[in-house]
Amino acid sequence: MNFDRLNSKNLNLISLKEMHSPRDPNFESRVRESFSRQTLMQTLGARITAIAPGEVEISMPMRDGMSQQNGFVHAGIITAIVDSACGYAALTLTPESREVLTIEYKVNFLSPAIGELFVARGRVTRAGKTIAVCSGEVAAESGGEPKLIASMLTTMMIINPEA
Amino acid sequence: MNFDRLNSKNLNLISLKEMHSPRDPNFESRVRESFSRQTLMQTLGARITAIAPGEVEISMPMRDGMSQQNGFVHAGIITAIVDSACGYAALTLTPESREVLTIEYKVNFLSPAIGELFVARGRVTRAGKTIAVCSGEVAAESGGEPKLIASMLTTMMIINPEA
Amino acid sequence: MNFDRLNSKNLNLISLKEMHSPRDPNFESRVRESFSRQTLMQTLGARITAIAPGEVEISMPMRDGMSQQNGFVHAGIITAIVDSACGYAALTLTPESREVLTIEYKVNFLSPAIGELFVARGRVTRAGKTIAVCSGEVAAESGGEPKLIASMLTTMMIINPEA
Amino acid sequence: MNFDRLNSKNLNLISLKEMHSPRDPNFESRVRESFSRQTLMQTLGARITAIAPGEVEISMPMRDGMSQQNGFVHAGIITAIVDSACGYAALTLTPESREVLTIEYKVNFLSPAIGELFVARGRVTRAGKTIAVCSGEVAAESGGEPKLIASMLTTMMIINPEA
Repeated sequence: MNFDRLNSKNLNLISLKEMHSPRDPNFESRVRESFSRQTLMQTLGARITAIAPGEVEISMPMRDGMSQQNGFVHAGIITAIVDSACGYAALTLTPESREVLTIEYKVNFLSPAIGELFVARGRVTRAGKTIAVCSGEVAAESGGEPKLIASMLTTMMIINPEA
Repeated sequence: MNFDRLNSKNLNLISLKEMHSPRDPNFESRVRESFSRQTLMQTLGARITAIAPGEVEISMPMRDGMSQQNGFVHAGIITAIVDSACGYAALTLTPESREVLTIEYKVNFLSPAIGELFVARGRVTRAGKTIAVCSGEVAAESGGEPKLIASMLTTMMIINPEA
Repeated sequence: MNFDRLNSKNLNLISLKEMHSPRDPNFESRVRESFSRQTLMQTLGARITAIAPGEVEISMPMRDGMSQQNGFVHAGIITAIVDSACGYAALTLTPESREVLTIEYKVNFLSPAIGELFVARGRVTRAGKTIAVCSGEVAAESGGEPKLIASMLTTMMIINPEA
Repeated sequence: MNFDRLNSKNLNLISLKEMHSPRDPNFESRVRESFSRQTLMQTLGARITAIAPGEVEISMPMRDGMSQQNGFVHAGIITAIVDSACGYAALTLTPESREVLTIEYKVNFLSPAIGELFVARGRVTRAGKTIAVCSGEVAAESGGEPKLIASMLTTMMIINPEA
């Protein structure tokens, strides 16, 4: 049985992904300015490696002092970079004066966090006025070979700091 | 700044999706036989509308007696069809003698569950020997127009009922 | 080593549970009126068996046509009753004119849903102006013996339907 | 209406909490030895402040270089200490030769992570042979006053490193 044929008369859920257009053309500088205030990202040596409307990628090199008991990077650190990637993905789509806070997230860990580089990408699934839902992934790169190690589904709140 | 250009030398997380090859060529009949024993699916009028290695789609028409307080389909019912879609997506990839049980799931509700038809699709993100991680989506179709209403991330257990 | 002694000078997290006082003295009638509009609860034969500020209990007898493939109650149905219990727990604490919608939930399934009666209890962990966080549990009762079968952590949105 | 009276003939879900008895009397030294290998905990200045069968508490002082954009402790760091608390809570109940790995977690953030001390406690909800389900909480202490800031629900895998 062929999946695509079977679905030829069905909706294709893949195509349901929202097209995102930013409300603030300066979204990139807002994201970079906020990121520069996240002192954890500096401690981790993490940097933004891609920004687009509704998507942000953060990359972090392997670094000592961040491990769990087996020498893998601690789940909390992997979570930190993909949480920031998702939060900034949401921030690319907000009006200028808004900020984004994490309400909650769920993360599945798929493989041990071993590698030279960890690349987290966050994408907005649904951009609402007060709530944004994002999904994220983290890949570990060893010898140039990426491997998916974590998957996130998260709810962000869009807040007006002046209100 | 162009996202794709920036990432041209980076890994593309999209491409990290596992290719799934079934271990049991009769995966489809196993899925359909198990599905036929889910009496809730009969109560809901739900049916399997697509099966492929690592992916299953379940469709359910709107039906009375399944609502929350505003007349939308209750979150638990939307969850039921996408849970079954994810569980059967995992079952397509197991050896013949295995069964799948849901350990846990997280679901985000993106829009009210209003429509004539609800289409849930589950996909395996990571197929392990004892654990499978799946993601799922539900679309509501009104007048032929689909809208994404729910997003799931779930952990399934592969069990050997004879052990 | 004794846990309690060790913690005698520490905070006791148990005691951090918020005391909830309802803003609307008629919270119970609001909850019961809304519950009566959830047609799924009628289909399931579920009823509210306890209401207090910040807590609601819903009980559902075993019933045919609600099972997964092994004859256990389907995870989505267990989820439905504990979702409603958590949502109404949140509703007990809102002002009169507000409604509650589920943003997202995570549920862990601890044991098969077998029994004569299923009792779901929802409790508010944090009652904010626009967001409530609740936790829920479901017990299955067989021969009068309860067993914990599911655990939920959920985010609810407090909405003003007139706004 | 009184909640407790209404429930006097009902099961009390609170009482359903499993009593935990350790299989390995040396659980505490196993936990402390493993914790000492988590280099992230040293980087954070975190230490174990309580251990009991099925429960572990980890405390972390406020520290520079761990913040998000507003100066609050980053969600990932709060998650790290409560993940470790839950994982070690699970480890207190395993046989001697087993290890614990995090499959997945969900965390709700209830208040900004501001304070002098952060106290995470993990508790085992269900201890199975291969899967443990735990819940966790984090309190922030300012001027001796604790405030609940995060709530976790997590699934842990019990593995035999020799198998």
